[in-house]
Formats: sequence, structure tokens, C-alpha cells
Amino acid sequence: VTRVAKVTTIAFGDRLTEYVTRRESQIVLGLDPDPARLWPHAVAQAGGEDASDPPAARAAAAVARHCRLVIEAAGEHCVAVKPQVASFERLGAPGWQALVDTVEAAHAAGLLVIADAKRGDIDVSAAAYAQAFLGETPTPWGPVAGLGADALTVSPYLGRDSLEPFVSTARAAGAGLFVLARTSNPGAADLQEREIAGVGTVAGVVAALLSDLGAPGTGTSGISDVGAVVGATAPHRLAELRELMPRAPFLLPGVGRQGGQIADMAAAFAIGPAGGLPSSSRGLVDAYLSSGAEPAAAAAAEAARLRELAWSVASGEVG
Amino acid sequence: VTRVAKVTTIAFGDRLTEYVTRRESQIVLGLDPDPARLWPHAVAQAGGEDASDPPAARAAAAVARHCRLVIEAAGEHCVAVKPQVASFERLGAPGWQALVDTVEAAHAAGLLVIADAKRGDIDVSAAAYAQAFLGETPTPWGPVAGLGADALTVSPYLGRDSLEPFVSTARAAGAGLFVLARTSNPGAADLQEREIAGVGTVAGVVAALLSDLGAPGTGTSGISDVGAVVGATAPHRLAELRELMPRAPFLLPGVGRQGGQIADMAAAFAIGPAGGLPSSSRGLVDAYLSSGAEPAAAAAAEAARLRELAWSVASGEVG
Repeated sequence: VTRVAKVTTIAFGDRLTEYVTRRESQIVLGLDPDPARLWPHAVAQAGGEDASDPPAARAAAAVARHCRLVIEAAGEHCVAVKPQVASFERLGAPGWQALVDTVEAAHAAGLLVIADAKRGDIDVSAAAYAQAFLGETPTPWGPVAGLGADALTVSPYLGRDSLEPFVSTARAAGAGLFVLARTSNPGAADLQEREIAGVGTVAGVVAALLSDLGAPGTGTSGISDVGAVVGATAPHRLAELRELMPRAPFLLPGVGRQGGQIADMAAAFAIGPAGGLPSSSRGLVDAYLSSGAEPAAAAAAEAARLRELAWSVASGEVG
Repeated sequence: VTRVAKVTTIAFGDRLTEYVTRRESQIVLGLDPDPARLWPHAVAQAGGEDASDPPAARAAAAVARHCRLVIEAAGEHCVAVKPQVASFERLGAPGWQALVDTVEAAHAAGLLVIADAKRGDIDVSAAAYAQAFLGETPTPWGPVAGLGADALTVSPYLGRDSLEPFVSTARAAGAGLFVLARTSNPGAADLQEREIAGVGTVAGVVAALLSDLGAPGTGTSGISDVGAVVGATAPHRLAELRELMPRAPFLLPGVGRQGGQIADMAAAFAIGPAGGLPSSSRGLVDAYLSSGAEPAAAAAAEAARLRELAWSVASGEVG
């Protein structure tokens, strides 16, 4: 008799629900570090060491330090971090290492990691991106671990078969996806809000596709592993998209600087406390620029404020 | 009197036309290295050195060596290489370094580099990706150079304002973009081929947008710096999209393995020899698996065959 160890992977939706409930927060801490606008403390420390290193290495070290400081300051009020991959990638190989370090810091702080990469590609390339962020790559020299993110943002322009490799890798790893449906920028009107005769908007078509892809990955919480990115600046679309995607967790970027209001997000939470994840990046990290407080204290205060507000809205106390 | 040095940047369309004419080739050499399927020679060499290195470093070194060998073998018949960024990214920081090395090898061989990244994001994040691939990033420690690609593939789902930062960075650098319009996979039907009432398909809306964004970047050759990705598997769409985009160079992936036929691409070349860039990846790199020849010889023979065929079609001799 051959015994096979049974590996139990907890469905992403259940893991997300558990995190939100335990941490009593839906807030996602966005990290899109600009080397020219880091917290002064992170710059000063990085500048003092290895002055002979090339600019990419010094900038990447400062970026990693900045992200660690931001996580230490505001992480306790959040459920996840959302590193913007572009911000790291522009620093080359050292930048990718800074991203790896940031993921480690977030996990050490008990936070989920949503890699904001908005990848989208066909068959083997989609599978390669899934390996890069959520899985691992087999090689003749042994497996190479990916970033180890808990979830990944994905773009749907190439259609269903371009999303399936992401779904299968994510599902096997107990990870999740957040697929762009209706984004927070004005350009969302150019394609996403276009009306397809007799069907609905392009975003609505995407929503139906995501609902279908996510159904088999629904946990006992009722939350699926295929979520959607819905811009917090489009509250009038939230209820409509929630109806089309009754199991998808919504990642809600655009809080703060882009004008999204948590009070408008009640529809996202109609399926439970993990139904909506409001995300704020510069609204938290740059709070000190307007408040006059220390960067860490200002970020913590703003994160605490958003956390309380979202928790109230999700509990039906506001909205 | 302050004198400002005038930097003359050659428009991407003119540079592309010059490369195609001089090299007498429109063929793009796709590089999507899978560490488990590299040319045996690249694996053997990498395996013999630094056996104590972690798998990522050894796999990345082998990937870089493989890409260099492929470029040495088939590059002379091509005008550009198209590294698939996912294939490198899944090896982490060493993978990014292998991508840098591959770009250097391509440039040293006199080839253009089209980074196949399919990025798409909003405002500052789009600008950060443009810095990563086509520009540079200012930091307190000096500028950090990006990848130095000559062109980048981009996804349009987020609309016009998400493309503009890519266009401005590309244009300033004399680089180009290839924006996804109608891709080569079956899933293209899910969104791209949907009919918007009274307007045309979603791909047609993208085409009109690209034509508009590219107009100010048209060189004296009549070729713009905003190109389009048009799957070589959709010849029935080519003429239609060429009409909507009379200045855009078309990147035509899907030749070979995916069933695209160069003989069907005449419409792409209606605007000149640089109007169409047929791309083949595994069709070239894996030619040895079916031909029985050495990998290098098989790739060179297949690249020469595609080159001659495309040149004939572009010259109106076939098609």
C-alpha cells in the first residue's frame, strides 16, 4: 500500500475571510515607492552605506527599507499589502530583490500580499507569469520559487483562455486573482464602459466571465478565488457588478488621492466582510505631507481611520 | 545667451524602416525560454560551473546562454528579437539580469529589441513601466537606466490615459509601442471581437485610438511609433485593421506553432516593408526537434525561410 500525504490547501476565499475577521480590517496598504519620494528616514539610512554601489542597488535598498518602515507603521491596521510591481521593476534586478524583501516583510507582519502586476498573456506565457508570482518553475537544477504572493492582479483583454492558466496555478496554491473589471481611471470609459449590443458593458462581459471562472473556486465562506478590481471612483457601478459577481471579492483601489469614498462601498460588502478590500497607497504613505506629523505616525493614523470606516460600512452601520 | 544642445531623436518608424531595409528582413525572433527545454548545449555549459549556486542563478545563466546561442544562430536573418518577459521574470532577480544580458546580446548583433511585456496600468504606474523598459528612473543616487528596449508591447484595457505615459516616454526615447489590438489566441473572441453598437468591434475601437495616439509620432517614412499587435492567426482581420491604422507597424505573432501563415499577411505590408513584423518563437528555436539537424542550423534555416517568404510577400511577389 502506497501512502500519499494529503496536502490540504485552504481556498483563497476562506483564507481571506479568516484574515479579515481576525485582523478586523479590510484595508489594503498600497506600496508604489518612488525613489525620489521615499520617507526621509529610509533615504538617510540607505545613503550612508556602500556609497560605491551603483544607483540601482542603492535606490533598491532604500525602497526595500521604505516599504519595511511603512509596513511596520501602518501594517497593524491592514489585512494586506499591494506592491505595485512597476515601482520595483524599474530598478532592474536589485528592484526585483527589493520586491522579494517587501513580500517577506509583509508576511512576517502577518499580512497577505496582493502583487499588483496586471499581467495578461496567452497560454505558456500566462502560465509563466503565474509561476513567477504564485507558483514555482521546474528547472533541471531544481524548482525555482516564485514571489510567493497570495494574490495577483490580472488583465482580461486576451479573454478566457488567457485567464485559465492563472486560475489553475492560483487555485492549486490556495492563492487568488483580482481581474481588472472596471478600473478607477477616466480612461475606463474608452473600453470598459462601452455597450455591447444586447449584452451589457465590456466590464459586464468580463464580470460574467470572472463569475464563471471563479465558481469552482468558492470556499465555504462563499467567497471565490477569482476576484475583481473595481475602481473605488465608480460607486454607481458597484451594485451592478456585485450582482454579476455574487462570490468575487472586490479589490477597490482609488481611495484617497483618486477620490474614492469608502462610505460608497456598501454593495461590495453585501456578500460578507471580505467582499470588499479598499486600497490606499499614497493616501497613507504621504499622509505626513499634509498632516505635519511624522511619516510613520501619520500613516498609522490614516490607516486606522480607514479601517474603522470600512469596518463600519461593512457592518451596515454606515453607507 | 544660454545654449541648449539639441538632441535629435530619430522617430521609431524611421529607425524601424531603416533596419528592415538594411537587414532585408521583417522577421522577429521570439525568445520565450523554458528552463526545462533549452538547447542542450546551453544546459551542459551552465551545469558545469558553480554547482553550489541556487537553482535560480543556474537556470538564469543557462537561459541567458541559450538566448545568446539562438541570437548567434538565427539573428542574421532577423530584424529584431522579442523576449517574452514572463519567461525571465519567473526566475526572479537573476532572471531579470538574464533579460538584461539578452538585450545586450541582441543589440550587439545589430538587432532591435521588442520587450514583450504586455504592460498596462494607470498614470504613475504606467509611467514607471515605461521607465523600466524604455526610459530611466531619477533617484537621489543618480538615474537608473531601464532595460533599453527599442519597443514594448502594451495592453489597452485601461484606456487612453493609461497609454499616454507609454507614448510620451517612448517618443522621447525614439522607441516604439505595439499595443494589443487583435491577438492570436481563441480567447480574442471573448472581448476583442465583440461588436459595439454602431461603432465596430472592441479591437476596432482600440485601432482608432492607436491611430490617433500614433499620428503625431509618424516619421518621414510614414510609419508611426504606435504600432499594433495583430495575431497572425486572424488574416481576415488584417485588411480591416490596416484601414483603421494606416501608419501603424503591425507585430504579427503566431507564425508557425500557432498556425499563422506569412502568405496571408500582404495587407500588413500595404504601407511599406516595415508595415508587418512576423514573429516566430518556438517555430524557430524548436525547429531542430522535427528536422533532426543541430539546433543552431535548424533555427538558421527556418529563419532564412521565413525571411525570404516575408520579403516576397512584402514585395508583392506572393500573396
